[in-house]
Amino acid sequence: MPRAGASTDSRRSPKWEARRQAIVDTSASVFARQGYHATGITELCDANDLGKGALYHYIGSKEELLAAIHDRVMDEVMAGAERVAQAGGSPPSQLAMLGEELLDVIHRYPDHVWVFLHEFPALTGERADRFRVRRREYERQVEAVLQAGLDSGEFRDLDPWLTARAWLGMHNYTYLWLKPGGRLTARDVAKPFAEIFMRGIERPTRRRR
Amino acid sequence: MPRAGASTDSRRSPKWEARRQAIVDTSASVFARQGYHATGITELCDANDLGKGALYHYIGSKEELLAAIHDRVMDEVMAGAERVAQAGGSPPSQLAMLGEELLDVIHRYPDHVWVFLHEFPALTGERADRFRVRRREYERQVEAVLQAGLDSGEFRDLDPWLTARAWLGMHNYTYLWLKPGGRLTARDVAKPFAEIFMRGIERPTRRRR
Repeated sequence: MPRAGASTDSRRSPKWEARRQAIVDTSASVFARQGYHATGITELCDANDLGKGALYHYIGSKEELLAAIHDRVMDEVMAGAERVAQAGGSPPSQLAMLGEELLDVIHRYPDHVWVFLHEFPALTGERADRFRVRRREYERQVEAVLQAGLDSGEFRDLDPWLTARAWLGMHNYTYLWLKPGGRLTARDVAKPFAEIFMRGIERPTRRRR
Repeated sequence: MPRAGASTDSRRSPKWEARRQAIVDTSASVFARQGYHATGITELCDANDLGKGALYHYIGSKEELLAAIHDRVMDEVMAGAERVAQAGGSPPSQLAMLGEELLDVIHRYPDHVWVFLHEFPALTGERADRFRVRRREYERQVEAVLQAGLDSGEFRDLDPWLTARAWLGMHNYTYLWLKPGGRLTARDVAKPFAEIFMRGIERPTRRRR
């Protein structure tokens, strides 16, 4: 079974890629609305205006489509994390930037993120492994920033693993109410969230007034 | 269509109630494992070792079962919130107690909470309304504690709605890793989470060392 991104050359033309991505995006909305397991290939064909053969030509299988939705989110999340690492700066500023990047992805991809957070247990085998590895890689970057702030003395004594979970929960959970076209932008949320979190973990002597 | 809790008297014997609750709990595990939409009545019958007629006698319909799972979570969450309100105390201590109560429910009901957070869009009509009202009631209590801390000057200037979302996300999202029998208890998590959040929102002059 071909993996996403491991197809034959003939399939990987820019036109094929663009069409495939459009199918991934459309299907993310369908899955978000009615669930992965409850969605049949026929419904995916209808939503994408494609026959079965054509759909399979682009996506390989329903599970490969689910994996592609997860990759779409993780690609964006990891690109944001890479920008933050490249930008450098103090651990508090790194953490603030990570928050802004993460909320930006959640804000721009509400359906993908819904599917990402709800349907990941449906991934199996190599696809499940790939997802776990990428997700863990991101979590480790958050933990590393917390550890760096501990080492520099900017953050008070805390458990980086547990504190990362607090931070991830606070940010990830916005997927329930942070929507494109809503009254709040990603930045509207990122700033007060960073303010709460940073005051919460900074060493008392460093705290801002 | 009968609502949960609105059945005829003959159905509401203690024995009937106990059996019904056991069915709700067992079914929560099934839904958590394979999703609400993908689970058929036949699988629910098998899991509960009941015939179709007997299952319907206890649960009315698959959606009523889903609503009962949601109520199970909300009953516990609201009971905890009521204990906190009865206990009284300062807004910071109220918020800390709310966190401990919420994490305790998440820790004790991992399958119910998984279903609660993932499958609520499957509730329709009156059941969806009831769920929204109860969930909103709880959120309002969190917001009210934040507002009380603003009014008393214990919390710094903040948006109670957005701050409540930060708090809810941080706590609710633990459902992904806070499990019975795991290395962390609800209290192990509640304390450092409260520490982060309280430092994050307290007025600087009041901050602890």
